[in-house]
Amino acid sequence: KAVGQYDRMAGVGAHEVIIETPDHDATMAELSPDHLATILKVYRERILDLRNDKRLRYILVFKNSGEPAGASIPHSHSQIMATPTTPRTLAVELKSAQDHYQLKERCIFCDILDQEFQAGERLVVVDPFFVTHCPYASRFPFEMHLHPRKHSHDFATTDDDMLYKLALHLKEVLRRMNKALGSPPYNFLIHTAPSVTWKPQRKHYWETLEVDWHWHIEILPRITNVAGFEWGTGFYINPTPPEEAARFLREVEL
Amino acid sequence: KAVGQYDRMAGVGAHEVIIETPDHDATMAELSPDHLATILKVYRERILDLRNDKRLRYILVFKNSGEPAGASIPHSHSQIMATPTTPRTLAVELKSAQDHYQLKERCIFCDILDQEFQAGERLVVVDPFFVTHCPYASRFPFEMHLHPRKHSHDFATTDDDMLYKLALHLKEVLRRMNKALGSPPYNFLIHTAPSVTWKPQRKHYWETLEVDWHWHIEILPRITNVAGFEWGTGFYINPTPPEEAARFLREVEL
Repeated sequence: KAVGQYDRMAGVGAHEVIIETPDHDATMAELSPDHLATILKVYRERILDLRNDKRLRYILVFKNSGEPAGASIPHSHSQIMATPTTPRTLAVELKSAQDHYQLKERCIFCDILDQEFQAGERLVVVDPFFVTHCPYASRFPFEMHLHPRKHSHDFATTDDDMLYKLALHLKEVLRRMNKALGSPPYNFLIHTAPSVTWKPQRKHYWETLEVDWHWHIEILPRITNVAGFEWGTGFYINPTPPEEAARFLREVEL
Repeated sequence: KAVGQYDRMAGVGAHEVIIETPDHDATMAELSPDHLATILKVYRERILDLRNDKRLRYILVFKNSGEPAGASIPHSHSQIMATPTTPRTLAVELKSAQDHYQLKERCIFCDILDQEFQAGERLVVVDPFFVTHCPYASRFPFEMHLHPRKHSHDFATTDDDMLYKLALHLKEVLRRMNKALGSPPYNFLIHTAPSVTWKPQRKHYWETLEVDWHWHIEILPRITNVAGFEWGTGFYINPTPPEEAARFLREVEL
């Protein structure tokens, strides 16, 4: 095997579509907690399996629901894309978390959750295991981030019992979103650790993830359009303060 | 005046809407070259005037055309947003151009244009003063970048005669886009130098723009949706190779 064989970005990857239900009209929020837990287990198993291919640096699990969110298939599904490099957006986030840890010796996401529990006003759904809140600097109206309350850098290490608890939590979050916003188009994205933790190939390449990274799910309702200002600046205009969005999501009658 | 008074990001800015024509139904591509040149002069005059406010670091001129491109007003218009910081997207681009210059002692955009003239296959509209091409790594189908062929870092230094030539060029580009894609929603963005060139306030803050930056206009037809993969990675899936897009745009009958 040639030295450096995997150091160049190769034109390889994987793309998988997970069909979530045989029922053409069912949405993820309507599935039973058991069913939803099975989908989460499929995510975990596929991540673990794809990590056996050492050409793949990152495995992104995401969902496009509704045409404005980029879905080309109406039947409820999610997707996995594995890339031969850590994606740019993730790399920036991983590096920021690493920098925070260097400075504070604390996980930035644990710090954010501490602050959010103190403030309270941006919390949406809280249980003993998971918390969903509208981020302080939300890019989109009703943007939500879901974190495990116990520090964990890797979604794929979540056990069956905890995935069932996650299913219960996620179902409540999606039901609140659907009720509050009339079942909007949305994207969700699992931000978990890159695959290299398990197969370190380069020195200093995301070696500290276990302490400084904290997996989470971003849920992005697509009710406004990204326009010229956003493309030109990388800054986002959000007409709905996260405190109002969170209150509305908390108070909606299910 | 306190030292460092302008070093913190302040909650200030400016937002102006330029009504391009009294005719409610006219689109930019249908306006006469003289009329279009007047709009470009308004951009220039407003940029020059806003630069008198030293709190404003960057002045972004852009256009959202059509609801999927984020337009909330159907009447043909463009916008100016001035921000108290150099926008993130621009800062990354400015820094990359600076890095290239440090390495090569050449403007990266002049280098790109040289390569594009050699390759030829991604060129869309060429005249002695301006060139529009579909970038090699286009993020969107039919994405186009328009550059002045003579190195110039600042749109606002363009004289009336050259703005008229730009109007002729831009009109042809927009007409080709409209004919090829059935008048799609689109954004355009003028990427020009930050305001600080004229009022340096900090050492080493974009001091080298005159040599390493080259203003240009990005034209982004919005015919595909940005979905989970793009949000999660910062990578763009573009189903249309720029060579095909450019050929189609060149060959369309006007």
